[in-house]
Amino acid sequence: MKAGTLYGVGVGPGDPELMTLKAHRLIASAEVVAYPAPEGGDSFARAIVSDTIPASAEEICISVPMTVARFPAQDVYDEAAASIADRLSSGKNVVVLCEGDPFFYGSFMYLYERLAERHTIEIVPGVSSLMTCAARIRQPLAGRNDVLKVIPAPLPEDRLLAEIKSADAAAIIKVGRHFDKVRRVLDQLGLTSACGYIERASLDNEIIKPLAAVDGAAIPYFSMILLYKGAESWAHAPRLSA
Amino acid sequence: MKAGTLYGVGVGPGDPELMTLKAHRLIASAEVVAYPAPEGGDSFARAIVSDTIPASAEEICISVPMTVARFPAQDVYDEAAASIADRLSSGKNVVVLCEGDPFFYGSFMYLYERLAERHTIEIVPGVSSLMTCAARIRQPLAGRNDVLKVIPAPLPEDRLLAEIKSADAAAIIKVGRHFDKVRRVLDQLGLTSACGYIERASLDNEIIKPLAAVDGAAIPYFSMILLYKGAESWAHAPRLSA
Repeated sequence: MKAGTLYGVGVGPGDPELMTLKAHRLIASAEVVAYPAPEGGDSFARAIVSDTIPASAEEICISVPMTVARFPAQDVYDEAAASIADRLSSGKNVVVLCEGDPFFYGSFMYLYERLAERHTIEIVPGVSSLMTCAARIRQPLAGRNDVLKVIPAPLPEDRLLAEIKSADAAAIIKVGRHFDKVRRVLDQLGLTSACGYIERASLDNEIIKPLAAVDGAAIPYFSMILLYKGAESWAHAPRLSA
Repeated sequence: MKAGTLYGVGVGPGDPELMTLKAHRLIASAEVVAYPAPEGGDSFARAIVSDTIPASAEEICISVPMTVARFPAQDVYDEAAASIADRLSSGKNVVVLCEGDPFFYGSFMYLYERLAERHTIEIVPGVSSLMTCAARIRQPLAGRNDVLKVIPAPLPEDRLLAEIKSADAAAIIKVGRHFDKVRRVLDQLGLTSACGYIERASLDNEIIKPLAAVDGAAIPYFSMILLYKGAESWAHAPRLSA
């Protein structure tokens, strides 16, 4: 029997219309669909494409424990990889749904490293939160010969400072409970007024603000701060008025 | 009369199936479509979606002179912005086609800065070359708390060295005639063997190689080098065998 193919499919940032034609085709014809979900909660990736998944598809929910540990429990991915490998070996294709893009800070890499050696895998890139946040804030990420950095907010304060200082443009991700630390660094560099803040980009409950107007009390994990040092030239444009 | 809306639409990296459902809907119903093209040559952005543009659409080709100047001739964008503004003022919507994503190192920003103040604009993010190259090379861009840098190869050698040295992951873009300089920096840092090279990602004439196997004699502008320092753990995966 011919073994199946594993498709790691980016489903985009949240608005179902931001999935690609290819993602739509693969999901609409899927025999098996797998996706991560927080333990006891709903899967965001599944919610984005729920109108596209066929009723006949088998669904594998990868239930990821909410943990204070820095990296997720590896046995969850061992088990999910075994379930997926079983379907592939029996000749079925498996579509793994990935929020945004599969290889941009996604948990798909935990499945990929377990399955790539023995199975046929195709990665289908998706619209990333990075590009979506820039589009929604209406501020270019970077241009010309700018160095653009993607910087996770959990990093230590001195590393944040060094990296932001030497960047022409930066996207600070995973802000959440690290907001005060990030804000302190940006204040110190005199860059707060050049930053835009966004949470839940492209969703109905999206919030966009100048960073200076953000109250740090309840910042979700899915939030981003965008800095573009070339943005002075954009001061005339209504980039933060949305 | 109600003024039209300008849509800056990312059409993805080259494979027409990597355009979003939203891009497809907007282009398929467009009254006016605008796109950049090299002077005397074909538009890559238009070619990606040529099967979707309606025969009834007016087309505005923005002919960009091939110049050795670092930044493109501004009068070309002045003229294009005026043409587009004219259509918007007469109540028509205008779709500007952007390779990849509009705000990731794209020429759309030159139109945006000319038109944002007076016109209604919506940016539609697209699948970027960044995510596409990672998918095709089969190597994650970044994960966990990695700092990911997008670094244009035309930068001076000492800046390249400093930024790559402190990155956990890097995408070196616009490689072209700067290949030898970039290769020298990566050799000096002992990182060449950790890098993948790709050109024309997602197109029929795509080329993927380990960087060490690349001959620097004829590197196109649309090429990228991807470095992921965490990639040792991927040594078992067939990430560069495509």
